[in-house]
Amino acid sequence: MTTDTQDLLSINTIRTLAMDAVQQAHSGHPGAPMSLAPVAYQLWQQELRYDPSHPIWPDRDRFILSNGHASMLLYALLHLAGVKRVTRDYKVEDALSVSLEDIQKFRQLDSSTPGHPEYRWTSGVETTTGPLGQGVANSVGMAIASRWMGEHFNKPGFDLFTHDVYAICGDGDLMEGVASEAASIAGHLKLGNLCWLYDSNHISIDGSTDLAFTEDVGKRFEGYGWRVLHVPDANDLTVLGEALHTFKTLRNNQPTLIIVTTQIAFGAPKLQGSSKAHGEPLGDEEIKGTKRNYGWPEDAKFLVPDGVRERFQERVGARGKKLREAWDARFVEYQKQFPELADELVRMQGREAPKGWDSELPTFPADAKGMATRESSGKVLNAVAKNHPWLVGGSADLNPSTKTYITTSESMKPGEFKGRNIHFGVREHAMGSIVNGLCLSKVRGYGATFLIFSEYERPAIRLSSLMELPALHIFTHDSIGLGEDGPTHQPVEQLASLRAIPGLIVLRPGDANEVVEAWRVIGQQKSHPVVLVLTRQAVPTLDRTKYGAASGVAKGGYVLADAAGGKPEVVLIGTGSEVQLCLDAHDKLTAEGIASRVVSLPSWELFEQQSQEYRDSVLPPNVRARVAVEKGAAFGWERWVGFQGGIVAMRSFGASAPIKALQQKFGFTVDNVVKVAKDTLAKNKA
Amino acid sequence: MTTDTQDLLSINTIRTLAMDAVQQAHSGHPGAPMSLAPVAYQLWQQELRYDPSHPIWPDRDRFILSNGHASMLLYALLHLAGVKRVTRDYKVEDALSVSLEDIQKFRQLDSSTPGHPEYRWTSGVETTTGPLGQGVANSVGMAIASRWMGEHFNKPGFDLFTHDVYAICGDGDLMEGVASEAASIAGHLKLGNLCWLYDSNHISIDGSTDLAFTEDVGKRFEGYGWRVLHVPDANDLTVLGEALHTFKTLRNNQPTLIIVTTQIAFGAPKLQGSSKAHGEPLGDEEIKGTKRNYGWPEDAKFLVPDGVRERFQERVGARGKKLREAWDARFVEYQKQFPELADELVRMQGREAPKGWDSELPTFPADAKGMATRESSGKVLNAVAKNHPWLVGGSADLNPSTKTYITTSESMKPGEFKGRNIHFGVREHAMGSIVNGLCLSKVRGYGATFLIFSEYERPAIRLSSLMELPALHIFTHDSIGLGEDGPTHQPVEQLASLRAIPGLIVLRPGDANEVVEAWRVIGQQKSHPVVLVLTRQAVPTLDRTKYGAASGVAKGGYVLADAAGGKPEVVLIGTGSEVQLCLDAHDKLTAEGIASRVVSLPSWELFEQQSQEYRDSVLPPNVRARVAVEKGAAFGWERWVGFQGGIVAMRSFGASAPIKALQQKFGFTVDNVVKVAKDTLAKNKA
Repeated sequence: MTTDTQDLLSINTIRTLAMDAVQQAHSGHPGAPMSLAPVAYQLWQQELRYDPSHPIWPDRDRFILSNGHASMLLYALLHLAGVKRVTRDYKVEDALSVSLEDIQKFRQLDSSTPGHPEYRWTSGVETTTGPLGQGVANSVGMAIASRWMGEHFNKPGFDLFTHDVYAICGDGDLMEGVASEAASIAGHLKLGNLCWLYDSNHISIDGSTDLAFTEDVGKRFEGYGWRVLHVPDANDLTVLGEALHTFKTLRNNQPTLIIVTTQIAFGAPKLQGSSKAHGEPLGDEEIKGTKRNYGWPEDAKFLVPDGVRERFQERVGARGKKLREAWDARFVEYQKQFPELADELVRMQGREAPKGWDSELPTFPADAKGMATRESSGKVLNAVAKNHPWLVGGSADLNPSTKTYITTSESMKPGEFKGRNIHFGVREHAMGSIVNGLCLSKVRGYGATFLIFSEYERPAIRLSSLMELPALHIFTHDSIGLGEDGPTHQPVEQLASLRAIPGLIVLRPGDANEVVEAWRVIGQQKSHPVVLVLTRQAVPTLDRTKYGAASGVAKGGYVLADAAGGKPEVVLIGTGSEVQLCLDAHDKLTAEGIASRVVSLPSWELFEQQSQEYRDSVLPPNVRARVAVEKGAAFGWERWVGFQGGIVAMRSFGASAPIKALQQKFGFTVDNVVKVAKDTLAKNKA
Repeated sequence: MTTDTQDLLSINTIRTLAMDAVQQAHSGHPGAPMSLAPVAYQLWQQELRYDPSHPIWPDRDRFILSNGHASMLLYALLHLAGVKRVTRDYKVEDALSVSLEDIQKFRQLDSSTPGHPEYRWTSGVETTTGPLGQGVANSVGMAIASRWMGEHFNKPGFDLFTHDVYAICGDGDLMEGVASEAASIAGHLKLGNLCWLYDSNHISIDGSTDLAFTEDVGKRFEGYGWRVLHVPDANDLTVLGEALHTFKTLRNNQPTLIIVTTQIAFGAPKLQGSSKAHGEPLGDEEIKGTKRNYGWPEDAKFLVPDGVRERFQERVGARGKKLREAWDARFVEYQKQFPELADELVRMQGREAPKGWDSELPTFPADAKGMATRESSGKVLNAVAKNHPWLVGGSADLNPSTKTYITTSESMKPGEFKGRNIHFGVREHAMGSIVNGLCLSKVRGYGATFLIFSEYERPAIRLSSLMELPALHIFTHDSIGLGEDGPTHQPVEQLASLRAIPGLIVLRPGDANEVVEAWRVIGQQKSHPVVLVLTRQAVPTLDRTKYGAASGVAKGGYVLADAAGGKPEVVLIGTGSEVQLCLDAHDKLTAEGIASRVVSLPSWELFEQQSQEYRDSVLPPNVRARVAVEKGAAFGWERWVGFQGGIVAMRSFGASAPIKALQQKFGFTVDNVVKVAKDTLAKNKA
């Protein structure tokens, strides 16, 4: 044990700040910060390349607290290291990200210290954690990003990206499937710059991990291809330090798992090692007893003894600042020698799109046969990728189906990170979290699978939105239109349930040119994730000389075809593959002398952002005979059609059959849409 | 190699039926049935205790095809074994489940051979598979059910439940996180009656598994505590047989993974070992070549040579029938000696609730302080559990929070299955799939976690509904009302996205007595899953002498408080914790002379099942001034309030703060509801 007095003082400061903050908030999780304090402290003081005065330095090591409920551990570190506040447009301010006052306002409205760490809310928080398994899965994306950026930007003499990624995690994280998926892909890719520190405290909420978690975690991770190290006592900084050193020195061929045996609520006289210390305040008496055990003044609250901030400055801040300043100097020279790459890097860091990213967007000629929107999207993606160097992604083992392979690049391979195509394997959930990790490192990440498997990925999609990341989630095979694979593969409720996520932009383009415009929307995003929803089956490419311009996609909805004089009796609203069905019904209605309008509504969210005036021009308030047509659940469509409208949509799961039989069975025929339009009109006239 | 002629003939019949059916359908997955035919054949002929003439015999071994895209393998087996059709009310008919004509109609509308195997659609299909990982995770639930039923029903001399559970799975299954979670818990519980057969064909859709899946699967599973066996060549029936024998003889202490090295599309001249054989027809020429390689008449289609059905009858049917008849005889005697248990078993198999299951349902006295609905639900669950012996479940490591522990029973432990409480660990997704597995075996399974983590579980919840299982998914901490844990833990869009799932009943009771009635609904379900949504925070127990009776819950929605004379100007609609808020607003509106009604709407789905007359009596069509109040996303509420109503709901993610601050911030105050009600009223009068 080489823990010197100053080390112990620093560690116990973290512990007591955590205890005091939780007690003051009357809620929170004291146990894990108390057990993990030495682990985090040793990592920060010995290895972490991090400059608290510039917490968005691109090549900083990433530190993730995957067991986000231990948030006070992170807030204490950010406070003691003096991490600066960063504005939402990436300006570093002089104020602290987490002041002592903020710690005293732990879990209060608008404080920088919410219950779980939140990205973009508190600078120094590298990712939002709390939903278990997500942080470690994000870390894989960040480690990939570090390697990919190294391949892309580094030049001889200019190592711009060499950072490592550390994640602390608990039993809960490692029980989650998403962590398993992420660990498997990390091992496959030989991510030697990735280190997880596992808080093995043998305690979960129900009690001992013996109740549900008795697997040999080390052996499992060796199966994934990881290096597994053991630290039998979290308080032994020497052994901790050796394990971290092993990671650093052997970092190039496999990820590292350090299994650290800890005692939850270390030092608490009654609650050490108890599940009761997990999720509630220790209580005043227990806190006093713990402080006595630490040799701490038992009545002092929120005490930061002299020398502790200085220790952090000396062991973290000074090293980090020196490294960051050297990087800055290197970058000045890099800008001279490689101005284009340097410009890319600057844009990336500001979440700007590259210059001319959209210069080769195609226009598709009218074509009655048309093509599947997954097909046109594949072409557009490749047209974008040519001029958007940091667009990096892949599919969950569905490249031939999702058409998301960047053909001008290659695949990422174990230990080789030059390619921009990631083979995620059949791991949708980890794909979503890894895409978030890429975006957290400012790479423009995307993932792709069938729309039905968005279900496997939802927790990550939600976090894309909560973190305000411009992540791109591409989903093909978007309806019963996929045919014979049947109800297990046919999305029904997925569009509704994605539209329900706050902040998420759902785009379901109706033809190849709407796909182009959808990509134009995607390219411009800085703080909203986009879900791009595409067909398996061919849809006609509309003749835009006859119909409204596809650029209306940017407004979410627009008039595609109209009644004479712009005075419709009935409005047909369609998305995606149902736009053509609406147009066909419109033709028939017109032939029968019924004045109808067709509105293409590829994105509810974008449409809702338009002025009332614009929205009324598309959906006239006085026309209540409206019919929505979508091969998805009816759920939610009342927003656009009200009580007096009609909805041609799914009311059940799908079925296995060729597409034509399904269209007939579920009412997606011109005749049925016309019938519903007439019925709706009649109802409104009655 | 001991493959005799008849074995090979049977195996090649399976293979050629699969090729021919996929070719005729112009879609499907021929490769896996061709490689797996010997594996499934050997299992069925050597070990499977299964009576094709009675495919719902309760103690049959379960055979699951987790890689459901290989559905033709299963259909061929069901056909060749002569599995009988079973009606939806559990009557065995004389007709075949899968006739040769059905195979010729593979993937056509209404055939018994949909693209992926569907439970309750095709008898002999033990679970719906296709979404990868689900089948293997279901198998863990079934293996638990076998053991638990054994503990519950078996008596000396009466081994009623001793069956084993087999699942065939592919690379895709084993890459999915849900399979990892399920494997971990299976190892923990020492489920010696569980055997997975892993089709290791080194091929995924993108190409070689080298692209994304290079982990050491065997080592991983050893880490989980499984026995791992290897069969280097799927065509070697002797080695396959030995592995199966090892499983059977050593079955009592750990689950078994048999890793079988296979060749996708075995025998195909050009496509053997190619990812192209995965998901599309082989083509006529390739099929001919394959048939030549098998020594098959190259122009014969859908050929079942003489002797093949007989071989299945001899090796599967005869053994199974004998076992089943012995079981039947045993059960006749059991009925005499243990009439109550026998009655339970019969009811269980028919998905009937036990006699008197609801005899001890409590009534809660009015109480202004009240209690959290998770708390009242915990009490009701325990009152039900006393008289409902096969209610078995648990939580994802949240027992102290979800209040779902059956206090009159104990916990399931490794190798000990008497307890009715399952510690699922922090494995929400596997929990959902295991609950489905329990229900597939007729145990009334339930799982519990926080509502936000329903996101991790959605693919399983969807399958509960698609399979028409009466699974119970309990979700607590159902809104921003959980307070300080913040936006990562506060559900917003979850209610909407669960309501969007076809066939699922979502119940969000408003007080303790609505909780009782919700459980009454739950107890009666036979073919609908229920999601029970509960608060973390206390809600008052309403005085039912003053308000509408809680029995209205069964109708989904009912009038709780009304305007004088039943003539409201404005209707307030609330669910769960917002019911009280509506009542308080109602009091204030009444005091101000505004006639309002409060409708409690705990279940949209149940309400929609009522007559138009009843629904109109609750929500009068002429009252368009309606205000919905729910601490969830506004999404979907337009169904009930239309264009002219108001919605007090969430429009963003939540925040970390004490509940009162959040209620203020997000508008869940009496003053705001009153204001919105008045505004809505004014809008409607204008």
